[in-house]
Amino acid sequence: MTPPALTLHPDRALPADPGTRAVAREILAATRDLPIVSMHGHVDIEVLERDEPFSDPAHLLVVPDHYLVRMLASQGVPHAALGVPRLDGGPVETDPRNIWRTFASRWDLFRGTPTRYWLEHVLVDVFGVGVRPSAETADAIYDQIADALERPDHRPLALFDRFGIEILATTDDATATLDPHAALAARGYGERIVPTFRPDALLRVDRPGWADDVALLEQRSGLPVTSYRELVAALEQRRAHFVARGARATDHGHLGTDTTPMDEASAERVVATALRASAGGPPVEPAAARAFEAHMLFQMARMSSEDGLVMQLHPGVLRDHDGTAAAVLGPDLGYDIPVAAEFTRGLRPVLEAFGHHPGFRMVAFTVDEDTYSRELAPLAGVYPALRLGAPWWFLDTPDGLRRYREAVTDTAGFANTTGFVDDTRAFCSIPARHDLARRIDAGFLARLVVEHRLELDEALETAVDLAYRFPRDAYAPSASTARELASVPAGEAGQVPA
Amino acid sequence: MTPPALTLHPDRALPADPGTRAVAREILAATRDLPIVSMHGHVDIEVLERDEPFSDPAHLLVVPDHYLVRMLASQGVPHAALGVPRLDGGPVETDPRNIWRTFASRWDLFRGTPTRYWLEHVLVDVFGVGVRPSAETADAIYDQIADALERPDHRPLALFDRFGIEILATTDDATATLDPHAALAARGYGERIVPTFRPDALLRVDRPGWADDVALLEQRSGLPVTSYRELVAALEQRRAHFVARGARATDHGHLGTDTTPMDEASAERVVATALRASAGGPPVEPAAARAFEAHMLFQMARMSSEDGLVMQLHPGVLRDHDGTAAAVLGPDLGYDIPVAAEFTRGLRPVLEAFGHHPGFRMVAFTVDEDTYSRELAPLAGVYPALRLGAPWWFLDTPDGLRRYREAVTDTAGFANTTGFVDDTRAFCSIPARHDLARRIDAGFLARLVVEHRLELDEALETAVDLAYRFPRDAYAPSASTARELASVPAGEAGQVPA
Amino acid sequence: MTPPALTLHPDRALPADPGTRAVAREILAATRDLPIVSMHGHVDIEVLERDEPFSDPAHLLVVPDHYLVRMLASQGVPHAALGVPRLDGGPVETDPRNIWRTFASRWDLFRGTPTRYWLEHVLVDVFGVGVRPSAETADAIYDQIADALERPDHRPLALFDRFGIEILATTDDATATLDPHAALAARGYGERIVPTFRPDALLRVDRPGWADDVALLEQRSGLPVTSYRELVAALEQRRAHFVARGARATDHGHLGTDTTPMDEASAERVVATALRASAGGPPVEPAAARAFEAHMLFQMARMSSEDGLVMQLHPGVLRDHDGTAAAVLGPDLGYDIPVAAEFTRGLRPVLEAFGHHPGFRMVAFTVDEDTYSRELAPLAGVYPALRLGAPWWFLDTPDGLRRYREAVTDTAGFANTTGFVDDTRAFCSIPARHDLARRIDAGFLARLVVEHRLELDEALETAVDLAYRFPRDAYAPSASTARELASVPAGEAGQVPA
Repeated sequence: MTPPALTLHPDRALPADPGTRAVAREILAATRDLPIVSMHGHVDIEVLERDEPFSDPAHLLVVPDHYLVRMLASQGVPHAALGVPRLDGGPVETDPRNIWRTFASRWDLFRGTPTRYWLEHVLVDVFGVGVRPSAETADAIYDQIADALERPDHRPLALFDRFGIEILATTDDATATLDPHAALAARGYGERIVPTFRPDALLRVDRPGWADDVALLEQRSGLPVTSYRELVAALEQRRAHFVARGARATDHGHLGTDTTPMDEASAERVVATALRASAGGPPVEPAAARAFEAHMLFQMARMSSEDGLVMQLHPGVLRDHDGTAAAVLGPDLGYDIPVAAEFTRGLRPVLEAFGHHPGFRMVAFTVDEDTYSRELAPLAGVYPALRLGAPWWFLDTPDGLRRYREAVTDTAGFANTTGFVDDTRAFCSIPARHDLARRIDAGFLARLVVEHRLELDEALETAVDLAYRFPRDAYAPSASTARELASVPAGEAGQVPA
Repeated sequence: MTPPALTLHPDRALPADPGTRAVAREILAATRDLPIVSMHGHVDIEVLERDEPFSDPAHLLVVPDHYLVRMLASQGVPHAALGVPRLDGGPVETDPRNIWRTFASRWDLFRGTPTRYWLEHVLVDVFGVGVRPSAETADAIYDQIADALERPDHRPLALFDRFGIEILATTDDATATLDPHAALAARGYGERIVPTFRPDALLRVDRPGWADDVALLEQRSGLPVTSYRELVAALEQRRAHFVARGARATDHGHLGTDTTPMDEASAERVVATALRASAGGPPVEPAAARAFEAHMLFQMARMSSEDGLVMQLHPGVLRDHDGTAAAVLGPDLGYDIPVAAEFTRGLRPVLEAFGHHPGFRMVAFTVDEDTYSRELAPLAGVYPALRLGAPWWFLDTPDGLRRYREAVTDTAGFANTTGFVDDTRAFCSIPARHDLARRIDAGFLARLVVEHRLELDEALETAVDLAYRFPRDAYAPSASTARELASVPAGEAGQVPA
Repeated sequence: MTPPALTLHPDRALPADPGTRAVAREILAATRDLPIVSMHGHVDIEVLERDEPFSDPAHLLVVPDHYLVRMLASQGVPHAALGVPRLDGGPVETDPRNIWRTFASRWDLFRGTPTRYWLEHVLVDVFGVGVRPSAETADAIYDQIADALERPDHRPLALFDRFGIEILATTDDATATLDPHAALAARGYGERIVPTFRPDALLRVDRPGWADDVALLEQRSGLPVTSYRELVAALEQRRAHFVARGARATDHGHLGTDTTPMDEASAERVVATALRASAGGPPVEPAAARAFEAHMLFQMARMSSEDGLVMQLHPGVLRDHDGTAAAVLGPDLGYDIPVAAEFTRGLRPVLEAFGHHPGFRMVAFTVDEDTYSRELAPLAGVYPALRLGAPWWFLDTPDGLRRYREAVTDTAGFANTTGFVDDTRAFCSIPARHDLARRIDAGFLARLVVEHRLELDEALETAVDLAYRFPRDAYAPSASTARELASVPAGEAGQVPA
């Protein structure tokens, strides 16, 4: 029996209503061939730098994809059967074909999920697969992808060009050398592949391993870190290094959003305690560690207002919910679960201090949809420094993207959002994710047109804004914004322009 | 003047868009005649066991229906006028015809509500009513229903068969004898009518009446309960009795979700204090009582992992919001109001301990929609032991059912939900509730098909999953899940399969 | 080049699906010409009383509109450029034409927002503008509006009549003289323009300026306020004055919803401390001030149950999020940001005491959509005294209005909502706001009809309820409600009717 075909319908993810769909098609036509601006992601820079063929279908598409692994795990497929490595080096499945078969045989689990949408796009568009995955078709699809991966046109940088990526930002530890970025820059990719500064590990002074990271920070920066003041100086040095390597932004993933500053003497005390703890002294109290985190977020905002790096916040996720899983598999492997988020009070100190600063830009993301209309849209709809990031993580889905526009546009409009930010580590899925976002935005705009709330010429312009102009501009504080604010007297910078 | 007709349109509750509706009709055709699997409800087992004719239309359809009574009360109709009995035996309306007239004359209040949807189904489909309720038609409809109720084909067990109920689970106190279940089993209903173990009253040690319930527990179990350890043993004995009577599940309705265990010595202290309190000693402090509740939920999970009863959670409802109403009318009479719920932190202890246990299954329900995409779908989308129950109580509605699928499918898919669970005490409305859920799921799946996110053959299969296979399997840990997990070494049972 | 035309499409804001739209049109026809009942707003009573021509387009439509100013500010337009006055009298743009140009040139920012929807309505319908605002068309539109404003038919009271406003409630400090209301009453507007009692300032005893307000209260009431008991008496006197001037309601904007009463001795102590603080004594502790606020809300409910004023709650907004902006521009100028709200526990004391009182009516508003299905609909769906207000502030939008009906109708039905309440200070936008609400309700009802969940005759009746009958009745406890409850024995008034 012929297996069911796998195709990408040209109208996929567009609204069901025929009249609205016709308008959406017209809007989508204005954006579908635009370059991709990918300002926040987790693609491994070394993969791009080495530019070697991807090893095999399973280790490219299955093993590292948390969305996919967590769904299979939720239905009882052991991580070991999916080849997910154990920290203790214990045995896991190593034959990629077996891993692929396990995945393909449970294709039904992904019905209605974004993983399914993205994978279909990757299979059809990147690898030319034409049949639906299943136990029966697993081997043939595996062979087809494996063959493609051997060809030069499927090497990482070849795909990078084929995907039409104008710029890609990676995420990098504050202590990263950025040597791979430098190497790529030497080959002409300096404007197109840029790092992002992520200092989380250094800001949580009660974290096991903090002292090791501080030692590495000393080594990378060439500066001593024996005090709070020196920690700040070393971080500033690293930021300057990132800026020199083309970085546009920082990224911060803390559980809460508190940004309350502390006085310098208190900050010095916390760092002193933390340094002594690494030499056997008593640990920093959790409350002091959280207060220091909040203080450092405030400091990061201050530094951003000076060096121009856009400050990205990704709060509200409880990491490693299952301690045993984290101990066996390592951190951040699918057991990160959202909690209720709060922005109004948490961001107040930073927004009061820098919310009108002409050089400051913050982008806030959330996995708590409740905050869209209640907190984030009202905040971004008044503070010039704040933009709303795209729906993040579990919300980066057809219905999630739609709900986001429906919830935030009333109060934030379009221009206070960043447009689409993909936030993916799955390199081959980048085009699929941008394609989906463009389709959902086309559908949303089409509804506004059909409901006579927007004219078609405006919708077409807005679609291009969301797909291309806004993400490009959000991560490069725009000349026009700077110009408008230039009239603020220097002494009032950072305060309300009145 | 002819009163308006009452009919059930074949397309009711299907999507408005004609193209989507056509696909939804096709999907609905695959499920509309499937048997009903009703794994959690509150039908009075004695009504089924006695199998006598229902008394009258008002006491069947109006007086015991909290949804209906609360809506009339909210518009100033006194409970007494609806025949709701007072605890003090004070006078209430006793003429069922008068009660029915009061209800029928306010039919307008139910516009747009699920009560209206279910009642229309019951009136038309169960009793053949053909005119819209109103003050004018009240008597004629009353007579028509009253006539039907006298006929043998409208006795409880006759309706049970006519409704196509394959299996019905009741909810029963931990101290219930289950004699009615035994009697029905003797008449061949043992596989079709099963009890559910509900121990809430015994787990709240600061509740007035706790000691009486403990005494009853001693009597039913034949075991002494003079300590924590003995309380646990008696509960285990009762669970074994429920299992022997065919129970598939337990049910737990606490305000919060905390499942943090305490050490055994602390648990012994709490129980000792509670037992002394019943003899005049000082009461258990509220904080200790809440901590003991959390501990006992953890114990219930441990017991479930051993005896296989599915553990159902129904948290987040503040019972008896109006103390005066509770004092006059009794508990749980429409004044139970939801509060914000939290699952990520609350369920962590149980999920870390048993979330990967091959013998454990938890089903979580919520009346707080915020937790769908933020907490419940991410949790159920990774822990094999957890399934999401159907939209509960106030959310068991056309739009509520739709929002649920839209919010959870992205991250949990379909297979991590239980399919439909009706949770009703209104026996005659069971088919209406399942019919509605099948329609909404058909509409949701049809949209996925029309938006080219799912193929029709997959949608048809999924519709049958949601209506029949998933609820059946969720309450009987499936052989396949057990098989997949069988490879976990015994020592690691309950831990992450890696 | 001809600039794009600006028109109001007859189908604007109606559902996209053609079948649903056709039904929505029919429903809208039943309400579009009904009078406007505007029971809660912030129109300046002196503007109506003076009835002088509005000064110019910018100071009528731009400068005082917080929605509009905050959006421009969020994209870096300085408040000064929009002519928003500074508290220190510092220089701001004074040429209304320049302000108008700044606004018109950023028309694109309002795409997809309710501000855009309302402004289009005002421009086209009130002023006959026919071209889309832009830098190019700014002057022509300015001139057209300026010309109109000079004509007698665009004076405030002429527009009041032309708008078809049957009744308009303003919002007035508890210490207001209400002289303008008296003057308008003398000219025959007594039934059509009524005040609303807003005592917030007097209930926050730790607020700077509280003592001054108390002094003014003494002056207005002619009563001494040297104790809690006298404070209550003076407030009761003012309420009686408002009732005499036609007031129908009170309004309360506190951060939280707590309504827990305190004993009278404690209340006396708080007031004594507050009075001494104004003479240099130590201030009232914040916790005591919040507890007193809660107590006074309970007292306000008690007074409402006696004098019949409907008690409106507008909680959950953190005022003046940016302290600098508030210091420069004054309070409540766009930097008010919502926080999570809680109603179930907060309103419990008031609802237990007065929730069934035949003379008490509370209307609750929220800017936290999460509370719709979780708390507010379940509360309003059982307590006769409670009605849900219309979507408030940031939620008063096409999609916000739709989500509200979808979330609350299941449990509260239609009759437990107030119908539309505009809550606007933008006088010219009143018809636009009611027009939009009628369209969204028509669309919602049409969907119920098309999905066979409601018959057309019922939808037509309900549309008129929502647009006209319910708001009129909600603010005038209806005779029928009073009659139904009249049977409650006097001793049980305020308790559950059973």
